[in-house]
Formats: sequence, structure tokens, C-alpha cells
Amino acid sequence: MSDGTSMARRTPKLSHLNERGESRMVDVSGKDITTRTAAAEAILRMEPATHAAVVQGSGPKGEVLPVARVAGIMAAKRTPEAIPMCHPLALSGVEIEFETGLKHDTKGRAGIRVLVRVKCTGRTGVEMEALHAAAVAALTIYDMVKALEKGMEVVSVRLLEKTGGKSGDWRP
Amino acid sequence: MSDGTSMARRTPKLSHLNERGESRMVDVSGKDITTRTAAAEAILRMEPATHAAVVQGSGPKGEVLPVARVAGIMAAKRTPEAIPMCHPLALSGVEIEFETGLKHDTKGRAGIRVLVRVKCTGRTGVEMEALHAAAVAALTIYDMVKALEKGMEVVSVRLLEKTGGKSGDWRP
Amino acid sequence: MSDGTSMARRTPKLSHLNERGESRMVDVSGKDITTRTAAAEAILRMEPATHAAVVQGSGPKGEVLPVARVAGIMAAKRTPEAIPMCHPLALSGVEIEFETGLKHDTKGRAGIRVLVRVKCTGRTGVEMEALHAAAVAALTIYDMVKALEKGMEVVSVRLLEKTGGKSGDWRP
Amino acid sequence: MSDGTSMARRTPKLSHLNERGESRMVDVSGKDITTRTAAAEAILRMEPATHAAVVQGSGPKGEVLPVARVAGIMAAKRTPEAIPMCHPLALSGVEIEFETGLKHDTKGRAGIRVLVRVKCTGRTGVEMEALHAAAVAALTIYDMVKALEKGMEVVSVRLLEKTGGKSGDWRP
Amino acid sequence: MSDGTSMARRTPKLSHLNERGESRMVDVSGKDITTRTAAAEAILRMEPATHAAVVQGSGPKGEVLPVARVAGIMAAKRTPEAIPMCHPLALSGVEIEFETGLKHDTKGRAGIRVLVRVKCTGRTGVEMEALHAAAVAALTIYDMVKALEKGMEVVSVRLLEKTGGKSGDWRP
Amino acid sequence: MSDGTSMARRTPKLSHLNERGESRMVDVSGKDITTRTAAAEAILRMEPATHAAVVQGSGPKGEVLPVARVAGIMAAKRTPEAIPMCHPLALSGVEIEFETGLKHDTKGRAGIRVLVRVKCTGRTGVEMEALHAAAVAALTIYDMVKALEKGMEVVSVRLLEKTGGKSGDWRP
Repeated sequence: MSDGTSMARRTPKLSHLNERGESRMVDVSGKDITTRTAAAEAILRMEPATHAAVVQGSGPKGEVLPVARVAGIMAAKRTPEAIPMCHPLALSGVEIEFETGLKHDTKGRAGIRVLVRVKCTGRTGVEMEALHAAAVAALTIYDMVKALEKGMEVVSVRLLEKTGGKSGDWRP
Repeated sequence: MSDGTSMARRTPKLSHLNERGESRMVDVSGKDITTRTAAAEAILRMEPATHAAVVQGSGPKGEVLPVARVAGIMAAKRTPEAIPMCHPLALSGVEIEFETGLKHDTKGRAGIRVLVRVKCTGRTGVEMEALHAAAVAALTIYDMVKALEKGMEVVSVRLLEKTGGKSGDWRP
Repeated sequence: MSDGTSMARRTPKLSHLNERGESRMVDVSGKDITTRTAAAEAILRMEPATHAAVVQGSGPKGEVLPVARVAGIMAAKRTPEAIPMCHPLALSGVEIEFETGLKHDTKGRAGIRVLVRVKCTGRTGVEMEALHAAAVAALTIYDMVKALEKGMEVVSVRLLEKTGGKSGDWRP
Repeated sequence: MSDGTSMARRTPKLSHLNERGESRMVDVSGKDITTRTAAAEAILRMEPATHAAVVQGSGPKGEVLPVARVAGIMAAKRTPEAIPMCHPLALSGVEIEFETGLKHDTKGRAGIRVLVRVKCTGRTGVEMEALHAAAVAALTIYDMVKALEKGMEVVSVRLLEKTGGKSGDWRP
Repeated sequence: MSDGTSMARRTPKLSHLNERGESRMVDVSGKDITTRTAAAEAILRMEPATHAAVVQGSGPKGEVLPVARVAGIMAAKRTPEAIPMCHPLALSGVEIEFETGLKHDTKGRAGIRVLVRVKCTGRTGVEMEALHAAAVAALTIYDMVKALEKGMEVVSVRLLEKTGGKSGDWRP
Repeated sequence: MSDGTSMARRTPKLSHLNERGESRMVDVSGKDITTRTAAAEAILRMEPATHAAVVQGSGPKGEVLPVARVAGIMAAKRTPEAIPMCHPLALSGVEIEFETGLKHDTKGRAGIRVLVRVKCTGRTGVEMEALHAAAVAALTIYDMVKALEKGMEVVSVRLLEKTGGKSGDWRP
């Protein structure tokens, strides 16, 4: 069975594709307005020396992490412009924390963890907003210290939790 | 030595911070206009069944990967709006490829690799454009199949290559 | 009677102009929140050879129409940024179909019809969102094949249907 | 011959598709920087009574056409955000004129013609900027008088002229 | 007491900072949905000759003030993109008036007053939308006549009134 | 002489209006590409207690001024989207400083001065970018402390210096 219609029937849960496999912004008008939250993380790995510069650059007068936080919060709001099938949502809150004391990974790299929490009262979830904010905040840190190390790597962007909505709560 | 000035003196390469540790869009007017390229990747890991749905959804009639490609190309152009200290750049070309035949990882997960190449003739590099496009394209795939698996993870967003500019070529 | 005030009194329905003929984003706070839909179309005319290229370019591996669909869906969301007096709206769904089998017109040109359906639960209608999406999707097709034929023409952008709201349903 | 590669070989001019039929923002870095212009039009048809309201609403104090002009100029600048494969361009000038004295069409409808001229010194043409501006300006007029007549129709969005660039000048 | 936590405890009302002094988009999901309004002004001072040009340029055929009005209305809608911690809001109405007959100030400068009124039914106020629109409208006038006088000055951007919400009505 | 044409002839320097008084993005393609700079300021006045909160909130852990700086830098880049007739420009640098030790004004209010410097190599000046960034940075400070004092006022947004371009250098 190689035709598109059959494929779509076999994968009915791909809500952003219609029965012909064409993309759409799926109709959520029948869904309830409930309070929904999502938490996501991104982890950026770098040499210990780079890590020290970020942490110092975010110290008394430096602004690496504050800039990354603003970038992440603004990215959360701009998610429906970046991710084509995302619904516009009136976010009610966004918080971003940085955890800089991660253990070195197996390659001896230090890490910074971006933790994003998004809240909304609406008809659809805010998972993408949390993931998008986490990725953009991590890339903003990269941008601000890339002169020191171009080989930094975002090693994990993933959803940590989701609450609210018909599909209920989710944790990995 | 706890004052910001000293810290900045010790990390002179953080070009997006001034001597007081304050963020800025660093002045590049003295840099040469040269052709610059960057390549970046993002790898999205998922269950083999989800992977099959993406690949089929991108088949004869489905549109998961084409939508992700558009999202990535548009994200490349919108990088200076997302990453606060990035310079506006007149990109001259963006290409995005998807590699769907990755080997399973140690957790038995299938993978899709997003490969982005960006080109520009200007005063500063396009690393952030390539990284941003790769991350947004990967998150767009996530968005389109998240109904099947919320636990998908972007496991690597990193620069693969950079050419042009005063700092010259770079590869990991 | 040449003064603006009189003019405005004679055309009381121009809701985006106040009594002095000045533009405004008209206050809709007193309107009910209801489910509203709109459908619009845009028809792009081109030489049969160009038409064949579009249809083939949208075939097994080509991506003309998928890209145009994404462009249209994103344009629907961005309507209040493009059309100055449009209210921001939390769209609940957008679908775009392409009909490629139109009869040739009197000039022997083949055609592609873009059909957009938009849905929203809010205080004002989504006609502009549907029209804007249709126009942008048609222009995106133009962009992707303009190397073949610069003389393509969008011959009709119009509203096909509107439901919901105080003014009720409408069809041409 | 049904495979994508063959198709692409037969339509080598679809520059925004690569040899596999995948979309891309085509590399223009090898093109010359020259002064390029484009002119485009959009014609909006409406009942004579609606037409009178627009013209009056644009009179001594009314602002329909000035608002549409601003919308069109801003749309020209925002073209690479709306049309996915368009290159970002530093436009050097945009002018929009409205011609309100068109002859009635065969259906007895009055008309307003939006005429857009765009200029740029860069590596690629500004046809899409002119077309996009014309379409958005026409839809803005529609928006501002739609309370009077929802059946208005944009009957022609087309390129009138293009100058500059390797492909040289073009007129219909 | 120099640590951040103590500082935050002493200034508990800085709602866009958390208890560690870090920025956030504060959670408003617990606030009531009520109708909220705000009015703000911006006053632009200029030489009397420049003032005459603006007023004439806004006369029978000129478009300085209509363009500034559109800029202000669009800025109101775009406030959450400009002011990082602002919540996205579905504005229900925006009106902008210009008062050109201000008395000269003590430096003999004429003035134009931009008066903005914004309305919204939502969980948070629209003060920033009104202030942002006023500032952008005033700067747009500056832009359109700056060839005559670069020394123009926006001498007052301030809130005039706010109604609705838990904190109730406010006037200076 | 009441007709628009005459008016326009008398004020030939309003470059963003054509000879009919209609707005346009004036053609700058004939201007030289030179390095241009602009400096602008905005001064925000507030009660001394509010001022203390801002300064503390910007201290060891607080982020009021860093957030305002990011907002200003991003606003500089987004100027052509906010100010309708502004040309898109590839800014080469933006720096924002805050001066918090202003003398109290005659009303006993403390003040914060936002100082913006913008640099660009292009065909037109960056005055609007500097002014826009200053205004948005000042309003961002307002937003972050408005819970303490809604009566804060931006008392001066003005150009401090401009260099480069045909019209040469300018200082008040």
C-alpha cells in the first residue's frame, strides 16, 4: 500500500496532516479552554574554560545569561511565526532558569541547562513554545561566546512535562 | 578579583560584551565584505514507529519534511530577530537536506538529521543562521508528529563547518 | 457638501474610519465571541507548459505546492501585521487546498486555484485572514516558477463564504 | 518517467527547487550587484457606490488610500518573511500610486488600480516585492470598505515591468 | 545587604523579576478577564516652520499624520514583540488622534500631541500598548519631516489613564 | 493656494512625500555607500524610590537594565518594520548605555538616561534606528517597574549626533 491516502489512514494521529497527507493548522475550535503548562530543557555543552567565561560573563556586570533569557522569552511568544503549524496563543507566563553546575559529560565538557516553563489558558498546548524558547536561549548563549569555542553543542532539547488539555498530563 | 572590568579583561574574546560586561551588537563595520558559508546540523531522535510515520508522511503526498524545510529556511532569514546580538545579513542562499537513514542510537531510537548550508556575502559570518535554521527545522518535525511521541529529543545541534571571514575556515 | 464630517455621515459603515474620516482599529469589545469561518480563493493563470512544471514540481519529490501551502498558512497568522486595521486573532484552524485541473481561460491559460478556509472563535471575522492567505499562497507559486514565465497573473482573489458574527452568513 | 530526478532535469529553470525537486533559497552569491526595478499592479473591482465611498473616504479627511499605501510599502519590505524562498533585500525605494478613474468592467463594476514601483541595488530582482505590495495594498482597501461590500474582487495582480539583472529587462 | 534575594524581598512589586531578580513574563493566568483601557500621549516639539510643514503635509493631499497614525496602530499590535516582558494580547480597539494646535513651549517651539487610546478584554492591562503606539507615532512624524529639522524632540511620553483590572483605575 | 501640489512645491525637503503629498519610501539608490553613525538619547523620569528599585533591580542579580538593553538593540534592528518609510539597513553595530546618576529635575524626579549609538555602512542614515532604540529601551524600563509608579515619564527622546552621508555631520 504505497498511496498517500492509505498511509494517512494508518497514521491518523498526525493531526497537522489531513487525510491526503497535506499540511494544515489543525482545527482546535472544538477543544476546551483549559490552563495548560509545559516545561522543556536544552543543554549546551562546552569546554570548561568556555563555561567559566559564560558564568563570569553573567556575573556582577556581565550579561550572557540575562540576554539569553530575554531571547528565550521572546522566542516563546514568537513560536507560531517560527513553527508553521503552531496556533497563535496568548501565553500567560514564561519563566527561564539556567543551571550552570552540571556535571561534566563523558567527553569532559561542562554544561549549562536551560529550563523553560510556559503557561497558557487556551485551546491547545504550549509544548512547542517551551521547546522553541529553550532552543533559542541555548543558541543565544552559543552566539555570545562562540568567539571562544565554535564547537559547543546543544546536546538535548526535550519536553520535560506537559499538563492540561484533553490528552492530560505527560512526563517522560 | 570580583569586578566586571577585570573579568572582561580576562575574556577579551566575548565580542558581544563590552569592557564593562554589557551586551552589544558588536561593530563589524571595519570587517571585510567576503563570501562566508556555514553548515550546521540538528539530529532528532524518536521511536522507530514515529520515524516510519515521518518518512511516510513525507512520501508521495505527505508533507512533514517539506514543511520543516520551509520553516528552517524562513528561520535562517529571521535569525537576527531571534538571536539578540546577531547582525542583520542579506543571505544569498540557504539549503536544507534531511537524512532519514541514520543508524539507531544506543537507546534503539531512529533518527533524522537536518543538514543546513547557508551562504552570504557580508561583514560577518552565518554560523548562527545555520544553527538556528537547523534547530527550528528539527522542532518543526517534532511539532508535526508530536501526537505520536512527545518524548522525541533533539540530541545534537552543532556547527559542522564555517568558511570565509578574518578568522578563516573552521571544522570540528 | 465637501467637508469630511458630512462624508463620514453619509458612509457610516466604513467602520475603520471614525466620524472625521480618520483610520482606527475599530473597537470590537462589545461584540460576542462566536465561532467564525471564512473561505477565500485566489486563481493563478499561466501558460500550460508552466502549469505542467508546477504540477510536476509538486509531484513525487517536488515541493512547489507544499511550500505555497506553508506560506499561506503563515500569512493567515500574520494578517494583522500586514493589513493595518485588522485585529489580532487567535486563529483556531487554517486549511489550504490547491485545485490544479481548472479549465483553460479564454486566453488559453491553464490555472491553479488556491482555496483557503480559516476558523476562529473570537469577536471579529476572519475574511481578511482567508483573503491574505490565498493571495500569498498564489504569489508563492508565482515566485517558485517565475523563472519559466514572468507573465503569470493572479486573476481573482475573492471571498467565497463567511459564517458567524452579528452580520451573519454571507455568500456571493 | 515518473521519478523526481528526471522531472527536475526536464524543468531546470525552477531555480527554487534543487535537482531532487526540494525547495531551497537559491544561491545568488555569484550574481552581480546591479540596480534593479520592478513595477506591478493589482486591480480591485467593486460596485460604483463602494467606489464612491473609497474615493470620498480618501478625500479631504478620509484615509482609505493613505492607509493602503502604507500597508503596501511595509509589505514590500516584509516580502522575504511572506514568500518563503525570497532573498532578504535592502530596498532602496518604493512608490505606490492609486488610479481611481478606471472604466467600469463588463460586469458594471468600478475599479481601483494599485501601481507599485520598487527599486533595489542588489543581487536579485524585486518582482516579488512589487507584486506582494500591490496585493497587500489592494486587500487593505478591501478591509477598510468591506462593511459596504464583501463581494469586491482583486481581478489582476501582475508584473508590469522589470529592469536590471542578468536576465535583463522584461515587459509583458 | 547586598545579595539579590534580599533586594527582591524589599521590592516585591517588580512583577517582571522573580525572587532572584531574574526577568520573567509574569504569570497572569490567575487574573480575571476584564475590559481594560489605557490612554497615553507623546508630544513632539519642533520649530514653528517645521510644524507648518507637517500640518500642510497632512492637508488636502499630504500624508504625514495618516502615516503616523498607521504606524502607531501597528505598533500597538506589535508591543509584545518590542517590549520583552509584555504579554501577547488580543487588542479590541486602537484610536489615535493628533492635536496640532498646542501652545508654543518656553523655547518657542510648536508642538504636536499624539493621543492614543487602546482597549482590550483580557488578563492584563494595555498601558504599554498605548505608550508604545504613542512613541512610534511621534517618531514617525519625526522621520517624515526630519529633512527639515533634525533637532525635533519628543518631550513627553506618558500614561494618561488606565481602567480595568485588579489594580483598578488610574490617572496621574 | 490650497491644492496639494503647491504645498509640496513649497516644502520640497519632505523627502518621504512625493510632489502630490503622497507618502513613499524615497529612492536612495543614487546615494553613496558611506559609513554613517547616529547617537540618540531618551530620559526617563521617576520618583527617587522607583529609581532606587531600578538600580537595585539591575544590581548583582537583577535584570531591569540588561533587559532594556536587549529590547533597545532589537528595536534598532526592527526600525524599518516600525517606522513605515524607513529603509531596511544592515546595521553594523549598536551600543546602549544607561546613565543612572542624573540630577533630579525641577519636580524632584530622579532620572535614567538611555544613550544609543548605531553604526551602518549604507546609503541612508541611522537616526531613526537610534531614536527608536532609545524610546523602546526607555519604555522597557517603564514596563519592568510600572507596578511601582505608573506616572513615570519619558521626557526627552532626541538625536544627539549624526555623522556621514551627503548632508554631513550634525549636532544640536
